[in-house]
Amino acid sequence: MVTATICTIGDEILIGQIVDTNSSKISTALNSIGVKVVSMVSTSDTEEDIINTVENALRTSNVVVITGGLGPTKDDITKKTLGKLTGATADVESKVQLEIITRILSARGMVPLSPLNKAQALVPDSCKVIPNEFGTAPCMEFEIPQERYGHPALMFSLPGVPFEAEAAIPKVLESIQAHFKLEKIFHKTICTFGIPESTLAQQIEQWEDNLPENIHLAYLPNPVLGVRLRLSIYGVDELQGLQELAENQASLKEIIGDAIYGEGTDSLQKVIGNMLKEKGQTVGVAESCTGGFLASLFTSQPGSSAYFYGGIISYDNSVKTNTLGVEKEVIKKYGAVSRECAEQMAAGARRVLGTDYAIATTGIAGPDGGTPEKPAGTVWVAVATPQEVISRKFSFNSTRRNINIERFASNALNMLRLQLNKQ
Amino acid sequence: MVTATICTIGDEILIGQIVDTNSSKISTALNSIGVKVVSMVSTSDTEEDIINTVENALRTSNVVVITGGLGPTKDDITKKTLGKLTGATADVESKVQLEIITRILSARGMVPLSPLNKAQALVPDSCKVIPNEFGTAPCMEFEIPQERYGHPALMFSLPGVPFEAEAAIPKVLESIQAHFKLEKIFHKTICTFGIPESTLAQQIEQWEDNLPENIHLAYLPNPVLGVRLRLSIYGVDELQGLQELAENQASLKEIIGDAIYGEGTDSLQKVIGNMLKEKGQTVGVAESCTGGFLASLFTSQPGSSAYFYGGIISYDNSVKTNTLGVEKEVIKKYGAVSRECAEQMAAGARRVLGTDYAIATTGIAGPDGGTPEKPAGTVWVAVATPQEVISRKFSFNSTRRNINIERFASNALNMLRLQLNKQ
Repeated sequence: MVTATICTIGDEILIGQIVDTNSSKISTALNSIGVKVVSMVSTSDTEEDIINTVENALRTSNVVVITGGLGPTKDDITKKTLGKLTGATADVESKVQLEIITRILSARGMVPLSPLNKAQALVPDSCKVIPNEFGTAPCMEFEIPQERYGHPALMFSLPGVPFEAEAAIPKVLESIQAHFKLEKIFHKTICTFGIPESTLAQQIEQWEDNLPENIHLAYLPNPVLGVRLRLSIYGVDELQGLQELAENQASLKEIIGDAIYGEGTDSLQKVIGNMLKEKGQTVGVAESCTGGFLASLFTSQPGSSAYFYGGIISYDNSVKTNTLGVEKEVIKKYGAVSRECAEQMAAGARRVLGTDYAIATTGIAGPDGGTPEKPAGTVWVAVATPQEVISRKFSFNSTRRNINIERFASNALNMLRLQLNKQ
Repeated sequence: MVTATICTIGDEILIGQIVDTNSSKISTALNSIGVKVVSMVSTSDTEEDIINTVENALRTSNVVVITGGLGPTKDDITKKTLGKLTGATADVESKVQLEIITRILSARGMVPLSPLNKAQALVPDSCKVIPNEFGTAPCMEFEIPQERYGHPALMFSLPGVPFEAEAAIPKVLESIQAHFKLEKIFHKTICTFGIPESTLAQQIEQWEDNLPENIHLAYLPNPVLGVRLRLSIYGVDELQGLQELAENQASLKEIIGDAIYGEGTDSLQKVIGNMLKEKGQTVGVAESCTGGFLASLFTSQPGSSAYFYGGIISYDNSVKTNTLGVEKEVIKKYGAVSRECAEQMAAGARRVLGTDYAIATTGIAGPDGGTPEKPAGTVWVAVATPQEVISRKFSFNSTRRNINIERFASNALNMLRLQLNKQ
């Protein structure tokens, strides 16, 4: 089995200032092509530590993916050290990366290039450059000869900036697949929302027990995406693998029905967007406690302007009454966090924005502002459709503000999805 | 200097299912008492991998903190392995942990205890128990004699569940402080916005070169937070350390002036919030291309309802004209992505929401929708103040939608901050 170690370089991670999210993304990608990640290591950016860490990794792994330590400033010495380690004899200029650097910095008005930026296009002559389209530091690939550590190895150096590292992953996978004979593995991720992980595990226990031996199931819970179920099938060819996965997906659907909202990289907002585009309908939002986050989920989707018209963030009650037309009497009598207020917000947003649907949220995100009757984590969600306004209360009983906002917004999206299913 | 390695055990992290947040929290805590974290390692939960990883760590570090691998199920063999490694002769029952286990499981109706749960109170006789108040698995502390690895060492084993691990940290620090004479270290993070990392590096090169040897500088760039500069000072007492850091901060301010917006864990939205609270003033937003994200930055801040009144997300032009009062003629003549439209949006939001300030964004987030004159990554930002409306165009020339949205929103926040500075 082809094994891998992921290394991150830089003091930011070691002193705890930054949480390493790159390793998790890279690991997921490597696993998806059947490469087993055996270790992840973070080390500081001194030459000695980099060499020790990388050599250790190369001794135990066929693939070493390094992130970080490639910025233009002085504390980044990874490139030099990897050159030394791989016996580079000189630095050469990567034309393609220099063009990218020039393009990026021209667009920012930073031309002519500073010596520091120009130097970013220099790479050790022992590497192959994988162009970094989104940043100035080139990604590098080093082929390590078999005799060096007793097995063939590939080493990659990627930038630490998460989206730059992520963008390089497909090329990294391609190269690994070209160099190594990998065991066949196919995945299917089934996206569910609305059933908590432990309840879901009970509901599908028998189905899970009946899975064939070569199919492995993993639960991937996420406050915004719900619980995703990843099925992995080993050792069969693609056609057979995909067919077996589809069959198991179908039998799962019989058990949990419309809790399944999509597959793969689907999200609630993407699925809803597709439904609305298909129907030629539009949606808007009225947000109190979610404060723009619900709208930002919609608009994170490319092309969302086709169906998402806009929203009113009515954080202050004056905006609820003045812009959305919520009756002052309703807020006085029931409070802003109430079924009545949520329903008037949704109806108001639908009217003001001129959309077919509108979602409203009003609740207590916390950490403060809760009461014994309405503790932090309480939200009322309303969905206005062309026919009616429906509403529901969710209680998460938590003072964790950002997690509450995520849960409020994703449950609001799910309520709209279930309504759209019925239309 | 007392050094530490943080180890996480378990396949969830290696296959990318879970992002490791424990290591970052533990590292921050260790650094705060002057323990230098030299490495972080994730390994799988086989006996061989655990022994290799932990022994390697003990060879290079005085302190090893291990998280994970302590659950009741079979695949968690950390406890047994650490006992073996430290020469335990028997398992002993921790009375205090057994009481906690009984209390927790009684509350869940899971009494009498299963043999599996009861066994969680058993620990190797080579350890001291640190009770885990919030979970069933005890935390363990092992003192490793000097002769074993040539230096005194302490090893801790904590649960993988983040809030359980976090709760044990104070006891871990206490024990480290009792065992080792620690070198003093103090940090100061200075938050800047508006100067790209490489330009900043050039501007402050001389200042950086003049830093005393015991002060280390690190650059921490982030699309939303800007470039943060972290200064670390070693080997002096607190009073002197803080004073020296403050002096260097002051000389930095002379060079880059109001690009500095805060320190430590400050963010633009937090700093703006404090300024507005102090002035007793309010703000609202009109968002096109940022689609709610700008508002969500404001409302991610606890207590933001004191100054953030709300926003209009005018994604569709109809919302720009109907709700914000942008003239149809303006959109027709200049386009929605224009100085004129941005300024009318900001003025409209200020009027409709009844706030002292309003920020407006209108641009092309991408990946599609760009033109040669207005490529994806172009945004007009306007800020309406009680006196005037100012506006500025930013061009990032990128088709990365989410990054564009982050940059648009953070630059919009920064424009407001600079205006507030002048008021």
